[in-house]
Amino acid sequence: MRCQVAIIGGGPAGLLLGQLLHGAGIDTILLERRSRDHVLSRVRAGVLETGMVDLLDAAGVGERVHAEGLIHNSARITSDSADFSIDFNALTDRHVVIYGQTEVTRDLYEARDATGATTLHNCTNVTPCDIDTDAPHVSFTYDGQSHRLECDLIAGCDGYHGPSRQAIPAEHRTEFEKTYPFGWLGILSETSPVAHELIYASSPRGFALCSQRNANLSRYYVQCALSDSPDDWTDTAFWDELRRRLPAAVADKLIIGPSIEKSIAPLRSFVCAPMQWGRLYLCGDAAHIVPPTGAKGLNTAASDVAYLSEAMQKYYDTGEKNRLDSYSAQALARVWKVQRFSWWMTNLLHRFPDQSRFDLKVQEADLAFLSENRAAQTALAQNYVGLPY
Amino acid sequence: MRCQVAIIGGGPAGLLLGQLLHGAGIDTILLERRSRDHVLSRVRAGVLETGMVDLLDAAGVGERVHAEGLIHNSARITSDSADFSIDFNALTDRHVVIYGQTEVTRDLYEARDATGATTLHNCTNVTPCDIDTDAPHVSFTYDGQSHRLECDLIAGCDGYHGPSRQAIPAEHRTEFEKTYPFGWLGILSETSPVAHELIYASSPRGFALCSQRNANLSRYYVQCALSDSPDDWTDTAFWDELRRRLPAAVADKLIIGPSIEKSIAPLRSFVCAPMQWGRLYLCGDAAHIVPPTGAKGLNTAASDVAYLSEAMQKYYDTGEKNRLDSYSAQALARVWKVQRFSWWMTNLLHRFPDQSRFDLKVQEADLAFLSENRAAQTALAQNYVGLPY
Repeated sequence: MRCQVAIIGGGPAGLLLGQLLHGAGIDTILLERRSRDHVLSRVRAGVLETGMVDLLDAAGVGERVHAEGLIHNSARITSDSADFSIDFNALTDRHVVIYGQTEVTRDLYEARDATGATTLHNCTNVTPCDIDTDAPHVSFTYDGQSHRLECDLIAGCDGYHGPSRQAIPAEHRTEFEKTYPFGWLGILSETSPVAHELIYASSPRGFALCSQRNANLSRYYVQCALSDSPDDWTDTAFWDELRRRLPAAVADKLIIGPSIEKSIAPLRSFVCAPMQWGRLYLCGDAAHIVPPTGAKGLNTAASDVAYLSEAMQKYYDTGEKNRLDSYSAQALARVWKVQRFSWWMTNLLHRFPDQSRFDLKVQEADLAFLSENRAAQTALAQNYVGLPY
Repeated sequence: MRCQVAIIGGGPAGLLLGQLLHGAGIDTILLERRSRDHVLSRVRAGVLETGMVDLLDAAGVGERVHAEGLIHNSARITSDSADFSIDFNALTDRHVVIYGQTEVTRDLYEARDATGATTLHNCTNVTPCDIDTDAPHVSFTYDGQSHRLECDLIAGCDGYHGPSRQAIPAEHRTEFEKTYPFGWLGILSETSPVAHELIYASSPRGFALCSQRNANLSRYYVQCALSDSPDDWTDTAFWDELRRRLPAAVADKLIIGPSIEKSIAPLRSFVCAPMQWGRLYLCGDAAHIVPPTGAKGLNTAASDVAYLSEAMQKYYDTGEKNRLDSYSAQALARVWKVQRFSWWMTNLLHRFPDQSRFDLKVQEADLAFLSENRAAQTALAQNYVGLPY
């Protein structure tokens, strides 16, 4: 089995990379550990930077996001002492688009099917091999048989738990990590969102977020203890807690209904450097994780893919590896800015168990300053709609 | 002994308040614990917001700051990976003025002498009394005799260690505090400053600052351990350490000479709320301390004085106490923004003993973002030149 670029991981990063490469005449084989149904059932992010939408257009899969995605020109921030909107459009002339990651993945799978490119699901024992040679390959088990996929380049798009990052020798990679002392309990509910605008609520009881996937699919979160389990939270307990963290006028309008999904995600910041070793290139969660506060996980996978697809195209067009060689540095420069923003926004809005009286007042002052300072709002908006690639 | 406003503390806050009140026809008596020579020998801040310069003008003591103060339109920030200037003038249309606190104090004493207002030095046992009545007084010992100064209002401008804050009943005040795990070792040297621009240097060895008082008086600082004593640091050791923390091109130009003052200041954030109780009003360090990173200590004392002098004038003009009653809330709103800025800038530029690899990279990303983002630079510049009163 042979292809030009072996892609490990069939989430949005691997699929998007495959489409962009296909458009440039570069053939790929994609290996995914889980079934397609499993991948499509995962509830994930839903806020797309316009840069990512442009990338979906470039990959030829932008039709549905333009038809169904909701344009958000602002987001609202509330606390006991502040209640204001960040007007992305006025501050940056851009916006974000609400469109579920599940939908992105579905569009990408359909497009990949149409190209006839090989996609193998339920692959196990996937291992990038000989990555520091000019003839790498990926070994894996499929349908009970061992296989060897020979290739020029390998893209590791297999998430935090995938094998790609581990293939970089431990002595040559540095991992940077921060864990936060809380998680997000999220539910998906087939109800009308309480507001068109996303609402980021900083309350004495902890953070809450009113988000959405579409006009009849709401996504709500409350900051919770790491020791909590979704089973501890009845729907009623969730709605009650959410309401307590929102301004009264918002809480009163909340339309509740049964949750169709309920889960807890711990909050973590993680970066692996470098993002490349030999002929293996990491993209997305394989190399970095952000806390979800700034909605940057999927979008940062997309910026990695933009850089990597261009570098690979240049390599195949000209034989020059310089863009491939600078991929890691280029991607990490943006990754760290995104990490900074996600960390800052997480600190701004959450309650921390060890916050002193002073820390709480500084957090309140940070919100007060942001609520009235256009420059501070602009810096937030520029990050939220997406730093340039 | 009787006056309208008793001022406790003969530093710049108390003196400036006295001048502004005198200009409005309100008489004051000022009580200071130390000698005038002692007060004038203290080396303190040297960066004035234009708002403070305006206030010196309003107090009739602006002549020398305009003649001798150095206008700074920018400040430079350096690190291993960044080297850029914040152009205050381009970003805010304003600037800061370099003029030592010692000079401000001298100008104010001379102006006070000219008014003939009473100033008593070497007062001991100074105690604000009956502050929750309409007839407060200050008891104190002067020249071996006990005295009682009757007044309408008391201004507590007596610094962190003074008696005024303690006069607010403990159960009615909240103190917010953060101590930083390092200090600043500062020296004053009769040498030409290494550059006109102030240089804030974030280095792996810790923070350093190249500041100045005038064209032949340099003020340099290095972040040091809290356990250090000035005696541990020879001049040579100081200059060597300073050079290691500066970009090579700056270090090479450093003109060294004997220190004429060398001291270590711990870094601390502190706020007391409320800043008023009964007829006692706190100003400046009596109510709040900032780490010196943002050069906000003296300037924030000045904004307190601006609010308080206006409130007192309104009271004497109209008999209405509403401005006096809202003084604490008004002053604290600005104080907390200044606290936030000073805390942020301290975090941005110093090394902390417990910083993780992740924390260090986020700090680097914070500097990288600031170095290239005009909105972030604008927010810094607006704070540095001074938030509006």
